[in-house]
Amino acid sequence: MSTARLETFADGVFAIAATLLILNVDAQVRDGSTAIGPRLLEIWPSYIGYAVSFVTIGIIWSNHHTVMAQLGRVNRTFLMLNVFLLLCVAFLPFPTRLVAENLRDRTELQPAALAYGATMTVMAICYLSLWLYAIGGRRLLRDDSDRRTVSGITRSYLPGAPTYLTATLIALVSPLASVVLFGAITLFYVVDSSFFGDEIIGGAP
Amino acid sequence: MSTARLETFADGVFAIAATLLILNVDAQVRDGSTAIGPRLLEIWPSYIGYAVSFVTIGIIWSNHHTVMAQLGRVNRTFLMLNVFLLLCVAFLPFPTRLVAENLRDRTELQPAALAYGATMTVMAICYLSLWLYAIGGRRLLRDDSDRRTVSGITRSYLPGAPTYLTATLIALVSPLASVVLFGAITLFYVVDSSFFGDEIIGGAP
Amino acid sequence: MSTARLETFADGVFAIAATLLILNVDAQVRDGSTAIGPRLLEIWPSYIGYAVSFVTIGIIWSNHHTVMAQLGRVNRTFLMLNVFLLLCVAFLPFPTRLVAENLRDRTELQPAALAYGATMTVMAICYLSLWLYAIGGRRLLRDDSDRRTVSGITRSYLPGAPTYLTATLIALVSPLASVVLFGAITLFYVVDSSFFGDEIIGGAP
Amino acid sequence: MSTARLETFADGVFAIAATLLILNVDAQVRDGSTAIGPRLLEIWPSYIGYAVSFVTIGIIWSNHHTVMAQLGRVNRTFLMLNVFLLLCVAFLPFPTRLVAENLRDRTELQPAALAYGATMTVMAICYLSLWLYAIGGRRLLRDDSDRRTVSGITRSYLPGAPTYLTATLIALVSPLASVVLFGAITLFYVVDSSFFGDEIIGGAP
Repeated sequence: MSTARLETFADGVFAIAATLLILNVDAQVRDGSTAIGPRLLEIWPSYIGYAVSFVTIGIIWSNHHTVMAQLGRVNRTFLMLNVFLLLCVAFLPFPTRLVAENLRDRTELQPAALAYGATMTVMAICYLSLWLYAIGGRRLLRDDSDRRTVSGITRSYLPGAPTYLTATLIALVSPLASVVLFGAITLFYVVDSSFFGDEIIGGAP
Repeated sequence: MSTARLETFADGVFAIAATLLILNVDAQVRDGSTAIGPRLLEIWPSYIGYAVSFVTIGIIWSNHHTVMAQLGRVNRTFLMLNVFLLLCVAFLPFPTRLVAENLRDRTELQPAALAYGATMTVMAICYLSLWLYAIGGRRLLRDDSDRRTVSGITRSYLPGAPTYLTATLIALVSPLASVVLFGAITLFYVVDSSFFGDEIIGGAP
Repeated sequence: MSTARLETFADGVFAIAATLLILNVDAQVRDGSTAIGPRLLEIWPSYIGYAVSFVTIGIIWSNHHTVMAQLGRVNRTFLMLNVFLLLCVAFLPFPTRLVAENLRDRTELQPAALAYGATMTVMAICYLSLWLYAIGGRRLLRDDSDRRTVSGITRSYLPGAPTYLTATLIALVSPLASVVLFGAITLFYVVDSSFFGDEIIGGAP
Repeated sequence: MSTARLETFADGVFAIAATLLILNVDAQVRDGSTAIGPRLLEIWPSYIGYAVSFVTIGIIWSNHHTVMAQLGRVNRTFLMLNVFLLLCVAFLPFPTRLVAENLRDRTELQPAALAYGATMTVMAICYLSLWLYAIGGRRLLRDDSDRRTVSGITRSYLPGAPTYLTATLIALVSPLASVVLFGAITLFYVVDSSFFGDEIIGGAP
């Protein structure tokens, strides 16, 4: 399998998972019995949940490219690790809805925040496994890949799982603080990419 | 990242957002308690809403190509701006349904029209930001891009946000007039493209 | 726009419209109150509706390629005609569900059959318009396209709209006969392709 | 049609069918009336169903590549066989939900297991037909394809249909044993791919 076809399948899952998020917002309005005007204001957590998860998927998609750009070949084990990563990505709309629906009336925010955090933690572990497998013994790296770039990527992926795990465990004490942290982590990645992201990362094919 | 992979992801979101619109029409028939025959005639605003939003997404997709064709490279900031644009595109099925469901019985058309207009206004702003960022200091332009083409695109994108903002604000006075305007803007783009669109814009790869 | 990107977007809509058809089958089981075993047998029209519409979309996708393979370039008018064709394709899951749900208890089969037939008739008209526009004055044809192939395609597309219109009008007298005809038309295309379809139509890229 | 466009359409259906699986999990939580915390634990079969079907689709996608990599050309009959295979793939989310919803309270697990098994058996038959048609008389094989690789693929695909048929028939005696077998078959393919899958199967394009 060329790396190109792996990317087509992955981009499909990323695009669909992101686009399906709008069904969560839609369901929120349908469930309500109040007039549409106030209802549209009332469900503000749905908009934030939609935006945070959409942007999170956008960042994972962008990082997925960074990984693939360093690889010169793939094997079946890598394919399977990739399927597990996509399994987590496609799962994300589910805990997103749980958090969004319980953010205003916080009596049930704790299980929702734990579900969201667990999904993100497992996803970060899948991501790191995929990368460490690919670079172990330079197994799948391009022959001309740069050691400095590779170790830079490793350094930037290592804190992902512990960060999300910490934010998840905080939900045991304060679910709200946990949810705010999830949003803040995403915001950090956006700002990090946007302000310091002016190096050219690719040209026309 | 090659510009090609950015286009694969974007085309995926465009295609899915457009295709999901049919779920709105579907939900309308399911909610009704009358016989199917009259019900199918009764929900005519759903068909118009479906067509207007589908064609709107088609136009945005076509314009997205026009932008990408001028670019020779992308960077992370551009990627993030692109994710925000797609976030708006994937959001469109939601306000489309609100408008379609409230077009016959107009007691709640105002919040629906405001939601639709706000989405389109924010999308137009995202589009313009993406373009202005790319051409600022010829940052991401192809080396052989033509100044006249570039300034032509800029001129045609500048009126987007103010036009949609005006149509949105009109909803405060007359929601119906506002909704008619949204349809008219789309119709204008279709006619504009179809009657004056016979210049060849691309060949086989 | 290269013809390649037009095909990516079109293939996305084809793939999603086809895959969304399963939601219709799913909804049928959920609506029922009987035990799952008998319910799964009871909803047999859903399986046929799913298969007929899935295969219909598969045939349109395959024909779309045949059209694109003859074209050397595209323009904005062609893009818009293509968007209208895709609008019909993405609409198909909706009348499919109407027909499937009313095939056993036929009291409301007539409006459902009319909706399905109207969709297919409009789609056939869009298809023919797209093709006739492309070949008019050899506007978008490849320079090396063969006159015999082109007129062969024209001849095979011309009967589409009248055939579907006839099958639709038959619903006014007998909805069931109309629905059987829709299935038969699809079956004809499958058999036609499968038994006489052993000429090689494309190689590896 | 180039084999590339066939792969784009197929990858789209694979990606969408896999991503739609999350809607099953989502519906499970919505249907419940208990608090979210216990409900999230209660629906554990949904998570397993989601994972098993997602990974199954991932394996089929990966095998689809293995088939396409051996082919040098396609014809219309092959296209139609491919559409039938995709029809089965897109059907999978439906029986997956049936099994997941009835795994805890097993009174209705039998019809659900039979539906899941029947889908997988038909899919295995479609897969084998597609492959045997392509290699019959070396009809669509690349000119440089290796006899040993081709017969290796044939040997590995032959047991698929009988294996799934056996697991399906076991549901007549013990639905639970049948469902456990479905999971075990998937697990076998994952382990088989992951532990013995370190040969390089493709490079960068």
